[in-house]
Amino acid sequence: MKAKVTVTLREGILDTQGKAVEHALHSIGFTGVKNVRIGKHIEMDIDSADAAAVQRQADDICRKLLSNPVMEDFRVTVEEGK
Amino acid sequence: MKAKVTVTLREGILDTQGKAVEHALHSIGFTGVKNVRIGKHIEMDIDSADAAAVQRQADDICRKLLSNPVMEDFRVTVEEGK
Repeated sequence: MKAKVTVTLREGILDTQGKAVEHALHSIGFTGVKNVRIGKHIEMDIDSADAAAVQRQADDICRKLLSNPVMEDFRVTVEEGK
Repeated sequence: MKAKVTVTLREGILDTQGKAVEHALHSIGFTGVKNVRIGKHIEMDIDSADAAAVQRQADDICRKLLSNPVMEDFRVTVEEGK
């Protein structure tokens, strides 16, 4: 089953990469763009037919490897039937 | 209005970062995980009340700055009412 994970910086943490992209967008004419935040998107296949088990394992993976819990949040979505 | 963008490597392009994460997951016991692919997640506020215009502008931003069209795909979702 496929699990999709989005890891984002917590609110209030300065996103320097996002700021750089925002400046670049302004300089090429997209002046109406604000609050650019950049995170990671991870997709993986987990070998299990039970959506709840896949969700639990993906949460565990995020806590142990993919995210830094001090400054990042994560969201997991499980795509059934894949 | 908030636009959310996901930029992923095209199918068939070797994802070395994903492979490294996959090896790391196997070595800490998550042996049922396969096909790890890593991409970027970008959120931004676009100053417009018209969802179609926001979508168009976000597509344009992806093509011009956020993605490399030779090796990456992107998906844009617009969150109305924000």
